[in-house]
Amino acid sequence: MTQLPPSARALIETETLAHLVTLAADGSPRITLIWVGLEGDEIVAGHLDKDQPKLRRIARDPRVALSLQSPTTNEIGLNEYLVIRGTARLQEGGAPELLQRLAHTYLGPEVIFPPMPDPPQGVVSRITVEYIGGVGPWTEGR
Amino acid sequence: MTQLPPSARALIETETLAHLVTLAADGSPRITLIWVGLEGDEIVAGHLDKDQPKLRRIARDPRVALSLQSPTTNEIGLNEYLVIRGTARLQEGGAPELLQRLAHTYLGPEVIFPPMPDPPQGVVSRITVEYIGGVGPWTEGR
Repeated sequence: MTQLPPSARALIETETLAHLVTLAADGSPRITLIWVGLEGDEIVAGHLDKDQPKLRRIARDPRVALSLQSPTTNEIGLNEYLVIRGTARLQEGGAPELLQRLAHTYLGPEVIFPPMPDPPQGVVSRITVEYIGGVGPWTEGR
Repeated sequence: MTQLPPSARALIETETLAHLVTLAADGSPRITLIWVGLEGDEIVAGHLDKDQPKLRRIARDPRVALSLQSPTTNEIGLNEYLVIRGTARLQEGGAPELLQRLAHTYLGPEVIFPPMPDPPQGVVSRITVEYIGGVGPWTEGR
């Protein structure tokens, strides 16, 4: 496990969408955009629908990568960005509560999410961070 | 080859950064953010430095994926995004001219890029599109 520095934690806790990469059965890459948050040192995401290709891919091969683009640019106008590599595991249930918490960040403090009564409990994916990269304060001093 | 619909071409030709996924030797995913443009039906990117990990990865395994987040959101506030999967090939030279063209989109119409005299000719990566996904008008009607 690698500990996330405060600068990386701060970006993950904004409304920035994460580009999540998983691996297909043939080893080729797949990308989806997701909401993410933090629970301790893990990156978490909620999925109401348990029967999704990306969840089957994680169950088959848990190696994932995430990227988040920062609004900060350097002196020549190039954006900073955070890359995380790690291992994902799936935990049954808890998706509605997590999505409600993340919806306050991603959609607004008043939003009710999921927008339905009695949502399914779904799955939470939990990513253990193994590498931090990209361009930004999170890679300084290496 | 898959033809890009006009909606996807329009997003690629904006200042939206592309999240490029390549595969490491052990098959695990790597992500970098890059400028991209179009030449005919191919997606192109310029690299002044020919000795880069991502270029070595493309030479070893040309299967890549790209994602671009659209500023457009749907009725519940979720962003549209474009995912491209394809095969990349590397072409020697031509990077400064391509990067100058892309800098006009990404940094501004007056910008001189690369910001140095006599830049190296580098490499251009050219991606043949094999699959178009994500969420947006580019997947409608499927």
